[in-house]
Amino acid sequence: MRKNNKKVNAAILIIGNEILSGRTQDKNVGFISNWLNSKCGISVSEVRIIPDVEKTIIENVKLLSKKFNYVFTTGGIGPTHDDITSQSIAKAFKLKYDFNKEAFRILEKYYSKKKFNDGRKKMAKMPKGAKLIYNPSSAAPGFMIRNVLSLPGVPSILNSMIENCKKYLVKGLKVHSKTINLFTVESNISKELGDLQRKYKKFVEIGSYPFFRLGKIGVSVVTRSNSKIRLKKINTEILRIVKLKKLKILKI
Amino acid sequence: MRKNNKKVNAAILIIGNEILSGRTQDKNVGFISNWLNSKCGISVSEVRIIPDVEKTIIENVKLLSKKFNYVFTTGGIGPTHDDITSQSIAKAFKLKYDFNKEAFRILEKYYSKKKFNDGRKKMAKMPKGAKLIYNPSSAAPGFMIRNVLSLPGVPSILNSMIENCKKYLVKGLKVHSKTINLFTVESNISKELGDLQRKYKKFVEIGSYPFFRLGKIGVSVVTRSNSKIRLKKINTEILRIVKLKKLKILKI
Repeated sequence: MRKNNKKVNAAILIIGNEILSGRTQDKNVGFISNWLNSKCGISVSEVRIIPDVEKTIIENVKLLSKKFNYVFTTGGIGPTHDDITSQSIAKAFKLKYDFNKEAFRILEKYYSKKKFNDGRKKMAKMPKGAKLIYNPSSAAPGFMIRNVLSLPGVPSILNSMIENCKKYLVKGLKVHSKTINLFTVESNISKELGDLQRKYKKFVEIGSYPFFRLGKIGVSVVTRSNSKIRLKKINTEILRIVKLKKLKILKI
Repeated sequence: MRKNNKKVNAAILIIGNEILSGRTQDKNVGFISNWLNSKCGISVSEVRIIPDVEKTIIENVKLLSKKFNYVFTTGGIGPTHDDITSQSIAKAFKLKYDFNKEAFRILEKYYSKKKFNDGRKKMAKMPKGAKLIYNPSSAAPGFMIRNVLSLPGVPSILNSMIENCKKYLVKGLKVHSKTINLFTVESNISKELGDLQRKYKKFVEIGSYPFFRLGKIGVSVVTRSNSKIRLKKINTEILRIVKLKKLKILKI
């Protein structure tokens, strides 16, 4: 994995009517985002969930691939009629959509010849020039073309493939983060956090998120920064406020 | 709730760095989408997850409110510095951002006078002309302005408020759906489903989703349509294929 001393960002494009309709709970956003953050120093800047509609997929692939360093798509690369991600990405980049020889060989080997039917053959079709993302679970590979990485929608399969994306990515500046969980309400510390955010404006991002635990209300104060030193500094200031206000910290 | 014999759609705009970073798993998309589908005949056509960045919120509110009948935003209406949804929506529609008298009264009554600090007062600030969405959990109301309904990010609070959105929505044509769970693999029925989808092109949407249960692989075949009659017809055809192929149905 090549390194880069700049910020690198990505978008995630979840393709699938079943997520939009609420039938299936998405689990891929959190998984991909956490993996990109912790393993590659890449931040996810936008997520979109869209239906299995060719025009919509094409529009979004075009737009997001221009706007962000990488685009991860999930879903729509299986054998059925509603799996139209690969051909739509080919159209978005005006590339031929045809059998990838290596993918064909992998699938032909995985299935016996008699069982290698048209539906399964379809999974070897990709935009011309695509590089494969190997699939240790169920053989059918994902692919990367331009800056778009195309993965399946089933979380267990996607999870097993994610490490195989690494070699195609340029590593960005790591984002460090620190969480302090306080037993208090947001509005009790909102003024102080606002002042701190203004002071550290460009260098540290402060988030505040309510939680409920053991029947009590609390706030997680999350600070995120590319600089470990600044992160330490701001957390010293937060702990000073905590002491001054006599707030209780929840240690997990 | 007024009725409408047309299709009505919506977008969901999830605002929050904590969802993008993978720190927090979103639970609002599924909940809102299911509720809109089952209670209001409204389909969610697109979801976006974006950071707490004013410019990004403004751009997305402008675009989505033009493109869809309704936009539901979640997150960013609390008391802290990173809660900037209300003011950003006001800017998107070029409206004044100021105290809503009714919201102010509700919050003033909920908190004792001494505890009604600036952070809490901030939650009464909204785009001018906003109508309130009452909050039975923690008082601070959401609001509707133009076709945008703004709700909090904490799922338990959002869930308790959703029924109070109903009076502002026009009911659309209900989408009926039917699921048949088969013990088979997708590629075994992909040809037949593709043929059926072509036959019922505009009237029924067929989705096929792999599942794992009791150590076996299966496929959920989900059909969705505004017409109950067409839905029944296509499912009769699917059951004929099931019989022909001697597939086992999983009854849940």
